[in-house]
Amino acid sequence: SSKPSFSCREQILSVWKFAKEDINRVLFSLKMGFAVLLVSLLILCQAPYQVFGINIVWAILTVAIMSEYTVGATFSRGFNRAFGTIVAGILAIAIAQLALSIGRIAEPIVIGLSIFTVGAVTSFMKLLPSFVPYETGFRVILFTYCLIIVSGYRMGNPIRTAMDRLYSIAIGGIIAVAVNVFIFPIWAGEQLHKELVDNFNAVADALEECVKKYLEDDGSEHSEFSKTVLDEFPDEPAYRKCRSTLNSSAKFESLGNSAKWEPPHGRFPHFFYPWLEYVKVSAVLRYCAYEVMALHGILHSEIQAPYNLRITFQEEIQEATNDATELIRYLGKDISVG
Amino acid sequence: SSKPSFSCREQILSVWKFAKEDINRVLFSLKMGFAVLLVSLLILCQAPYQVFGINIVWAILTVAIMSEYTVGATFSRGFNRAFGTIVAGILAIAIAQLALSIGRIAEPIVIGLSIFTVGAVTSFMKLLPSFVPYETGFRVILFTYCLIIVSGYRMGNPIRTAMDRLYSIAIGGIIAVAVNVFIFPIWAGEQLHKELVDNFNAVADALEECVKKYLEDDGSEHSEFSKTVLDEFPDEPAYRKCRSTLNSSAKFESLGNSAKWEPPHGRFPHFFYPWLEYVKVSAVLRYCAYEVMALHGILHSEIQAPYNLRITFQEEIQEATNDATELIRYLGKDISVG
Repeated sequence: SSKPSFSCREQILSVWKFAKEDINRVLFSLKMGFAVLLVSLLILCQAPYQVFGINIVWAILTVAIMSEYTVGATFSRGFNRAFGTIVAGILAIAIAQLALSIGRIAEPIVIGLSIFTVGAVTSFMKLLPSFVPYETGFRVILFTYCLIIVSGYRMGNPIRTAMDRLYSIAIGGIIAVAVNVFIFPIWAGEQLHKELVDNFNAVADALEECVKKYLEDDGSEHSEFSKTVLDEFPDEPAYRKCRSTLNSSAKFESLGNSAKWEPPHGRFPHFFYPWLEYVKVSAVLRYCAYEVMALHGILHSEIQAPYNLRITFQEEIQEATNDATELIRYLGKDISVG
Repeated sequence: SSKPSFSCREQILSVWKFAKEDINRVLFSLKMGFAVLLVSLLILCQAPYQVFGINIVWAILTVAIMSEYTVGATFSRGFNRAFGTIVAGILAIAIAQLALSIGRIAEPIVIGLSIFTVGAVTSFMKLLPSFVPYETGFRVILFTYCLIIVSGYRMGNPIRTAMDRLYSIAIGGIIAVAVNVFIFPIWAGEQLHKELVDNFNAVADALEECVKKYLEDDGSEHSEFSKTVLDEFPDEPAYRKCRSTLNSSAKFESLGNSAKWEPPHGRFPHFFYPWLEYVKVSAVLRYCAYEVMALHGILHSEIQAPYNLRITFQEEIQEATNDATELIRYLGKDISVG
């Protein structure tokens, strides 16, 4: 929505600001660099290379695919990858044995049919609403199955192929998880907590902003309705503050799902911390944001209460607003320290 | 949010209903099965296997990674993969030559440093807001770079490795795109159009529902506020109808971004069709949904206008509602046929 600026200096400044805003972003990048370096050393150094051989390149792929910003998301993606690989491995070995036992001529036909079936079934399942979070898992099942059964067919030993692949992926997964957890971990739970508290404050700010504008506005400078709503409202401070809250549904759900995977940490020292309650609270808060947006809509409507009427009730309006914002801020603070 | 049902029969019925709701879902699954089968035939059949060798397994990986529901999303993902691979390939060849020219001892150090740098830079860049849509591209750059430079180091010929990888990926990409475009294509533009029209109707339905409930409610059966809002409102018809509209921001943006990649098709026979206007209209419509939700909030507030007052103004309220819903439906229809 913001216009791209082509000035090089500005670009660099904005990147710098983005990095400074949250130092975790820089730490995450350095961690990722370190993780791929670690796994590459397994090939670059002579000793581990002689043990593992060239198959270890799969570990690099795993680190690159599993790298996620938060610990919980890394665990969840790692689980998807591990589970997908194991399911695909077992399935591939079973079908490969079956195909072998049927005979040399029927073998490619059985393999081809099984590839078609696995492709169709995994693609359908990842569309099902309850399986959408496991999309990566289904992708992994599909390509691991194809790789194992096809290279097993050409190189004669599907079990060996599956095992080689499996331990490379396990090494990659362990490195990715270890770097993510033990070096400056970024917790999804912490982010979820911070995000919710910020959203409470944003809703309170937006409410204050709307009422302030309503009481200031003497109706003298109302521009044409359609133009105002379509072009200017996205830039108004009240709307801008509320916008991230209004569209936060997907973000909270993904953070909540990630946080469930995390062990107790920092100020959340209990197992089974009720992270999904945060998601529920965010839904109710979003509901408050809708009401604030309805107030914001009143600022833009053509029919307005006369200015002197508004001034007459100014005190009452202001008082109700103050009570409401105080309540919202108090609730946010309560979560923040609780 | 809905309770999981463990009855097997119900599960199968719900999957069956999901498939029947939109036959495209089944077509997509069969298409994907067909695409992986096609690419596997390159290895299973003797003739192409002798031409391409075992390196063609990378084509399978590409098909599995590129498979997306709509044509636009496939193009966009394919572009990310192609661009990422080419950037990584050029970078890897350049650094490999540099490392070779520096000498046998310094070579692994230069390679290690370059891997760390590429890992850190790509991980940072994919966090930048303006690069978030290209996340896959950065992942691809990272693992392709590592794979080429590391296997080039061990097998001696980075250019050969890069080229082998490149044509396998190209073959996989071409198969994925061809199957997606030429066999029952599912267009993101079409989905975007349909989704927007549906959202107009949903907002109109929700508005009608709210007003109907407001006029019916005689205040006799008001349960405790907190319980109602927290536990029951997600199940009310008005809220349920509106919910997908309220949370549609991310969906519209991703469909809009995908639609931009699609060639003219069906009833959108022009190049540079203004898909992003759909996204803007959806934002304004979401604004209307916020107002409907504010009305919905009134149904749940403790202080209510007396029943006989509501009945007195019933006709006017109903008339204003009818005008508003008619306008919304008319606008939706206008988009639908226009």
